Amino acid sequence: MNSDRNIYLHTVPIEQAVEEIKNRIDRNALVGTEIVPTHEAAGRITSRAVYAKCSSPTYHSAAMDGIAVNAESTFAAREGQPVSLGLGTKYQPVNTGEPMPAFADAVIMIEHVHQVDEHTVQIEAPAHPWQHVRRIGEDIVATELILPQNKTLNPYDIGALLSGGIFEVEVRQMPKVHIIPTGDEVLDFTSRPEPKPGQVIESNSQVLALMARSWGCEVSRVPPVPDDEQALTRAVQEAIDSGKHIVVIGAGSSAGSKDYTRKTMDSLGEVIIHGIAAMPGKPSLLGVSGNTLLVGAPGYPVSSVICFDQLIRPLIAWLGHVRAAVRPTIPVSLTRSVPSKLGQDEFLRLSIGRVGEHWVGTPLPRGAGMITTLTKAQGIAKIPRSMEGHPVDKPLTTECLVSRQELEQTLVCVGSHDNTLDLLANELMDQEEPITLASTHVGSLGGLQAIKRGTAHLGGAHLYDPQTKDYNFPFLDKYLPDVNVQVVNLAIRHQGLIVPKGNPKNIKGINDLTGSGLIFINRQRGAGTRILFDDHLQQAGISPDQIIGYDHEEFTHMAVAVNVLSGTADCGMGIFAAAKALDLDFVPLARERYDLIIPVAHLENNKIQAVVSLLKTSSFQEKIKGLGGYETTLSGQIMRPGMGLGEK
Amino acid sequence: MNSDRNIYLHTVPIEQAVEEIKNRIDRNALVGTEIVPTHEAAGRITSRAVYAKCSSPTYHSAAMDGIAVNAESTFAAREGQPVSLGLGTKYQPVNTGEPMPAFADAVIMIEHVHQVDEHTVQIEAPAHPWQHVRRIGEDIVATELILPQNKTLNPYDIGALLSGGIFEVEVRQMPKVHIIPTGDEVLDFTSRPEPKPGQVIESNSQVLALMARSWGCEVSRVPPVPDDEQALTRAVQEAIDSGKHIVVIGAGSSAGSKDYTRKTMDSLGEVIIHGIAAMPGKPSLLGVSGNTLLVGAPGYPVSSVICFDQLIRPLIAWLGHVRAAVRPTIPVSLTRSVPSKLGQDEFLRLSIGRVGEHWVGTPLPRGAGMITTLTKAQGIAKIPRSMEGHPVDKPLTTECLVSRQELEQTLVCVGSHDNTLDLLANELMDQEEPITLASTHVGSLGGLQAIKRGTAHLGGAHLYDPQTKDYNFPFLDKYLPDVNVQVVNLAIRHQGLIVPKGNPKNIKGINDLTGSGLIFINRQRGAGTRILFDDHLQQAGISPDQIIGYDHEEFTHMAVAVNVLSGTADCGMGIFAAAKALDLDFVPLARERYDLIIPVAHLENNKIQAVVSLLKTSSFQEKIKGLGGYETTLSGQIMRPGMGLGEK
Repeated sequence: MNSDRNIYLHTVPIEQAVEEIKNRIDRNALVGTEIVPTHEAAGRITSRAVYAKCSSPTYHSAAMDGIAVNAESTFAAREGQPVSLGLGTKYQPVNTGEPMPAFADAVIMIEHVHQVDEHTVQIEAPAHPWQHVRRIGEDIVATELILPQNKTLNPYDIGALLSGGIFEVEVRQMPKVHIIPTGDEVLDFTSRPEPKPGQVIESNSQVLALMARSWGCEVSRVPPVPDDEQALTRAVQEAIDSGKHIVVIGAGSSAGSKDYTRKTMDSLGEVIIHGIAAMPGKPSLLGVSGNTLLVGAPGYPVSSVICFDQLIRPLIAWLGHVRAAVRPTIPVSLTRSVPSKLGQDEFLRLSIGRVGEHWVGTPLPRGAGMITTLTKAQGIAKIPRSMEGHPVDKPLTTECLVSRQELEQTLVCVGSHDNTLDLLANELMDQEEPITLASTHVGSLGGLQAIKRGTAHLGGAHLYDPQTKDYNFPFLDKYLPDVNVQVVNLAIRHQGLIVPKGNPKNIKGINDLTGSGLIFINRQRGAGTRILFDDHLQQAGISPDQIIGYDHEEFTHMAVAVNVLSGTADCGMGIFAAAKALDLDFVPLARERYDLIIPVAHLENNKIQAVVSLLKTSSFQEKIKGLGGYETTLSGQIMRPGMGLGEK
Repeated sequence: MNSDRNIYLHTVPIEQAVEEIKNRIDRNALVGTEIVPTHEAAGRITSRAVYAKCSSPTYHSAAMDGIAVNAESTFAAREGQPVSLGLGTKYQPVNTGEPMPAFADAVIMIEHVHQVDEHTVQIEAPAHPWQHVRRIGEDIVATELILPQNKTLNPYDIGALLSGGIFEVEVRQMPKVHIIPTGDEVLDFTSRPEPKPGQVIESNSQVLALMARSWGCEVSRVPPVPDDEQALTRAVQEAIDSGKHIVVIGAGSSAGSKDYTRKTMDSLGEVIIHGIAAMPGKPSLLGVSGNTLLVGAPGYPVSSVICFDQLIRPLIAWLGHVRAAVRPTIPVSLTRSVPSKLGQDEFLRLSIGRVGEHWVGTPLPRGAGMITTLTKAQGIAKIPRSMEGHPVDKPLTTECLVSRQELEQTLVCVGSHDNTLDLLANELMDQEEPITLASTHVGSLGGLQAIKRGTAHLGGAHLYDPQTKDYNFPFLDKYLPDVNVQVVNLAIRHQGLIVPKGNPKNIKGINDLTGSGLIFINRQRGAGTRILFDDHLQQAGISPDQIIGYDHEEFTHMAVAVNVLSGTADCGMGIFAAAKALDLDFVPLARERYDLIIPVAHLENNKIQAVVSLLKTSSFQEKIKGLGGYETTLSGQIMRPGMGLGEK
């Protein structure tokens, strides 16, 4: 086989990669300066000190409505011993903002003036010099420094510059970032494609574009370039020629595009960094062509985000002579220990909430292909390359992706997944004080364990005990003997046989699975759904060895449905929602209770109360029923042992 | 006099003002929703839950370059006991991202494959099922919730939406904010005016526009409308009719415009809030016309910023069903106690840095007319209306206007002002790790007091002692007997007589001030410059009563220069820079040493070291000399008692 592959044997640490590029680029030669109108300069960076052209105010002005006077002429005034002043030389009416007459150095507020006649006022208290007067240059003195160089202009700065008579300002150019997605298999999102097997909707280029734009860059993007070395080289050369400062080649997910990225960078310049000691993000390439920075962004979405965030963000800040923004950090206790490779920074996406006194973080899946790990994460933590994994008993410094406020309003739910939780998440976001439901899915028993360890506000469970024919309570006795919990029903849901669209083999129930040659797809041992299925087999007097495919196990409802969709199996057991998701048909077989397990210690928590209140509303129950495959007769009710489906 | 004035007797607390407006506006009727292309939706807020249209990936795909196999066919493979697989039905080459063939459920990395011939490979280790395979729906499952409602879309969200086949998304309209500056005396900044006495450059409208834009609003602005009730009413009516959600009338600084704002709001709707219990910001007006929010923003820049930040920001968040962003806070020790009125929230702008273990904050001037108090502040603190002032011995919770990182890199300098400090501030911003010089000007002795209290990293002083003819040291002995300090010279500067342009009275020196009828303007008692002047008088054998105007005191170099510019005085004593600032002439009279007083405890601080290094460079010394009126023979050198100007 082709052994001429790009294998990244000599990865370098992130900080070193950034330094090596800084040493190869003359930033001031690459990114110039320009003059822009001041009022359009917010967010831009000054390239030199700015000195005021005029003072503000340009004249002594009244700071109150009243009369302008010379303070000395008022010194004798006392209560009951008024001083009279004549219009013109001794007083003059002024409104706020008006220039002071030459004779005056103080203003007396209108409320303290007694008008005797058209030309005379009396006052009963002395004024002190410069009282209620805004003096020339009080805010800004002509020629003084308004702002230093390398200042990112905020709205107040713009106000100060305009006040100082600065109507245009020299700023650094916005770094011009040009993004070229590549790959034969990627589809341009602007054409609103419907991907076929082997095709993916290209979105990395837009994620990177938006990130760069948020860092103050001027970003351009072209539609995907096919895996064609000449075409790619042409596209990069054009970008360099047109004065782009940073040219990003976004690899497709295929190996082919990766090869072309490197070859193109080699042919137009030099590859400096051949991979970084980080996961995700490892296959990042950095190079230069003259002074232009060339970037080969990895094809997987999380890898490309890490590449941009860790390498390109500090370089863009450096190009602008400013500090790279640093996200606030918090110490987070992980819900499980996480392995990582020595010598390689590991970036974990964490679902975070405050449970009791601590910030707890559940590691989200580590796959670099999962952009949703970034949309679901409240934080991102680095296990440094000097460590081999991170234990549970030591907090991990974590950068926050959301505000502290949002973190405080995050409800941590761990357990079995159910689509009703999505409905709940959506509804909680419309509370007066929005609540983020951070829901991680580790199965019902996993949820009980999280509660036991104090790393969740609540858990979702649908554990059926065939012996007692009850739900969850037998397991609570076993797994949470020492935790005082309340059990609140979310919904009753339907499990059944997922079958192809139109149910071509006319499957009506569990008895059709024997002797008919039908191929079944099963769930893994220990899954609630497997327990349910086995119970049904037993009741029907069917032995597992009568079922073709009984030993073929899948781990999720969705994987079962995919087997049916692809024809690998004729049917499998799962929830209605999984069938609906892939437009398959569904033969109802069983009903089960899906409950929320809530430690009594958290019952008074405003977020938990919002959940329980919501579950009781008929409007929310209607939405659950609208999903199909759900009943809400128990929703929001407190469950007791032995209640089963509540029909006794 | 006219007593029909708007005096805000019934101010209401900020939170109450916001609540009253919420109760009067139907937010969903005011701000609607719209469909926008997903890739252009960053920063927008979802108005409903978004569910995936397609799965990502849409097919089982190879996650590595290698061969696709059925894991079962590899289970027998061991080192030294290879399993052979034939092309087509047992293995197929795949690159990352390519669809898996129907027979395969695992990928073996290319590095672990031995190619025997064109149609056969051998492997020496078993593959486990789904190894190196991205399974259908691994990232996103069709029909599942991608994002809930009321989510502000970040770049990752856009990536997830595109991956899930969502090419357009329903979002809330951006609140449409329309800003109408008013006032006869205000000049439109877009015409690049040169203000004459009585005129001010209007900039508040742009500050407010940029603030609103940063909160996700669509902002429009018109040039200033004159103080004309009909014209203003027409402008507001047009804005309402064209569907603006928030119409802001920006008062000029004059009382006239304030009157018209209120009358206009009354005529087109109803004024709900007639002033808020806050300073600055008190004369804020809030009203409604139908569902449209009407805002009367105060004329002073800081007042209008507080009005917008405290009232409009939470209302805009509420219109979008999202949390208003909250700035990070730190506990700050004030350098002096600050008075405030009971019943009125007081917003302090603070210059903040970390001195030793504590965050210390020097209150900036409280004038609502000074926009530069916002550009200079690192934080803003509220003394709540339940308090009467804030003491020095209790930290005050302060919202940060800059990043934590920038706060850590802020050098706190307190003392006498000198223009060289501006040069220094500018230069420090171009360090590899930029340093912010937070410089507050309370005079030389004020600087020594700050050092004594431990509230400054360094102080600037030019205290001349006529007895010893030395600088600063005699005062250090007196005021800082217990603090070990190092004294480093900043520069030698020239003091002299500031005279009108062209020096029409041909003033050559201090002897010209007697018997010539010339009017002098003096500095306040205790000022370093006053001490210098008195010393010169004494040396020349002139008694103060021979100088006309000796008793007329000003408090700053600039105020002296203004007296000369306006013709109130013929000359005054001050630094060259003050003369230059107002394009006046300067008759040199004296040279003095301006030193930096640095506690030895801070000498190792990287920021202090940067300052001292910089002072020693010839390039920086050239810049100081370029200002005019400075000598740098001692700059950066450590001063010792008795060195004077270093010429002995």
